[in-house]
Amino acid sequence: MMDAVIIGGGPAAFSAALNLKIRNKSFMILAGNEKVTGLMRAPQIDNYPGMPGISGTELIEAYRRHVEEMGIEIKKDKVYNVLNMGDYFALNAGNEFYDAKCLIIATGHAKFKYFEGEREYLGKGVGYCATCDGPLYRNKSVAIISQNEEGEEEARFLSEICSEVYYLPMYKEQPELNDKIKLINEKVVDILGDGTKVHTLKTDKSELKLDAVFIIRNVLPVNQLLEGLELEEGSIKVDRSMATNIPGVFACGDCTGKPYQIAKAVGEGNVAALSAVKYLDSVR
Amino acid sequence: MMDAVIIGGGPAAFSAALNLKIRNKSFMILAGNEKVTGLMRAPQIDNYPGMPGISGTELIEAYRRHVEEMGIEIKKDKVYNVLNMGDYFALNAGNEFYDAKCLIIATGHAKFKYFEGEREYLGKGVGYCATCDGPLYRNKSVAIISQNEEGEEEARFLSEICSEVYYLPMYKEQPELNDKIKLINEKVVDILGDGTKVHTLKTDKSELKLDAVFIIRNVLPVNQLLEGLELEEGSIKVDRSMATNIPGVFACGDCTGKPYQIAKAVGEGNVAALSAVKYLDSVR
Repeated sequence: MMDAVIIGGGPAAFSAALNLKIRNKSFMILAGNEKVTGLMRAPQIDNYPGMPGISGTELIEAYRRHVEEMGIEIKKDKVYNVLNMGDYFALNAGNEFYDAKCLIIATGHAKFKYFEGEREYLGKGVGYCATCDGPLYRNKSVAIISQNEEGEEEARFLSEICSEVYYLPMYKEQPELNDKIKLINEKVVDILGDGTKVHTLKTDKSELKLDAVFIIRNVLPVNQLLEGLELEEGSIKVDRSMATNIPGVFACGDCTGKPYQIAKAVGEGNVAALSAVKYLDSVR
Repeated sequence: MMDAVIIGGGPAAFSAALNLKIRNKSFMILAGNEKVTGLMRAPQIDNYPGMPGISGTELIEAYRRHVEEMGIEIKKDKVYNVLNMGDYFALNAGNEFYDAKCLIIATGHAKFKYFEGEREYLGKGVGYCATCDGPLYRNKSVAIISQNEEGEEEARFLSEICSEVYYLPMYKEQPELNDKIKLINEKVVDILGDGTKVHTLKTDKSELKLDAVFIIRNVLPVNQLLEGLELEEGSIKVDRSMATNIPGVFACGDCTGKPYQIAKAVGEGNVAALSAVKYLDSVR
């Protein structure tokens, strides 16, 4: 059982990690797909004190070097779901499972628009992890709607077990797919079903008959990550110590709301980690 | 009338300044005596992301360079008192006066022990600014209790107008005083008076008869800085946007409470400045 898991791979997560390391806690960073961060695209950042005019790519590289120099490992596992087990948390990260006494959530900008029908059919044909739920749809028709290239791997996996796989990319790069996957360059309009399960994905140009829709976003809906986590205007609600409404769960960075800024994220990561240390001391 | 004044000269103040500058606000940093900061004494800082193992002196120098490269001026004026004028704030910084629409307080670690009698006789012989109130004690006896070398200058000034000047340093370096100033290397025990004004400074070894006691600390008591500012456990009470209970007044860094950390200070400075910008837009 680890002391803590940090979910996320941006400035807040790295800042939290430095502090947990200094305080000798056992922990892991589960960073997910590191390619997908808006920070990487910032050409020049002028308000991270001490590093004037640095680019987003340089800054995140400096953070990563710092973390690695401190002997902290960054894992690429993407966390799909966390179960609150009372006195610890069980994390499902695709094929891996991890247990930790406390959690630091730093999953980034959490606000986004749900698709029509997404919330209604969540768990009834709509899912966020093809690796986890794909086997339920053996020899059936499925679609993957993806904000990033991660979806391509999921599609290739599903193409091995499903009868039909539609792939709807929400990004500009040309996807690398195999012949079994049908590329659909259309805009999602609605996810339709009979009330108990999904049967159609409606786009601006067609209606796809299918059994499941997997949605791969850069960040997971945070309320999907951990049941009972209180939100405020779509962001995770925290107090000044970065504690959420669930004891042992702390949050930091963009997922706690505006302003979406690096310095704010780094500061909150610092505070969240020290609050987690205090929490760990109190439950020992 | 400036848009804002930042009071303080540490990481939170500098971080706030970068953001006000980027957002094109007119403002000033009133940093006070820059020599006096605990950060300068940190030999190695491992948890400021991106700059592993940096010393406190190097880090504050990097911050100062960054601020100066952005064309921001740092003034050494020390703010003694702020008056809330309703729709703006009037700052008394020794012999200078400044007006600003909003304030960012970043004065550092605010908790300290008051001397016995200090609060009772504040304004009745006890003061924090010899330059301001010294002239009231022409040809009288005064003492200066000082946490730093700044007090020596105040003592030299008072020695020109007062009949007797006692100097009680609370630091290790040998003070540079003139012959008219009496160096008292004793520990302050109590400030005594007749209920309406001070008449005695009691130390562990003697009782000094006098008319005024000036106390020079590294930071001013925050509740002395601005009347009506709400505190919580001795620190300035702020919400998640770094707003205090007074509209137009924001606070960040160590003065808002634990943890006393650079990353936290920098993050709070970032948020305080952006909240101040929002406030300025709303009152325009």
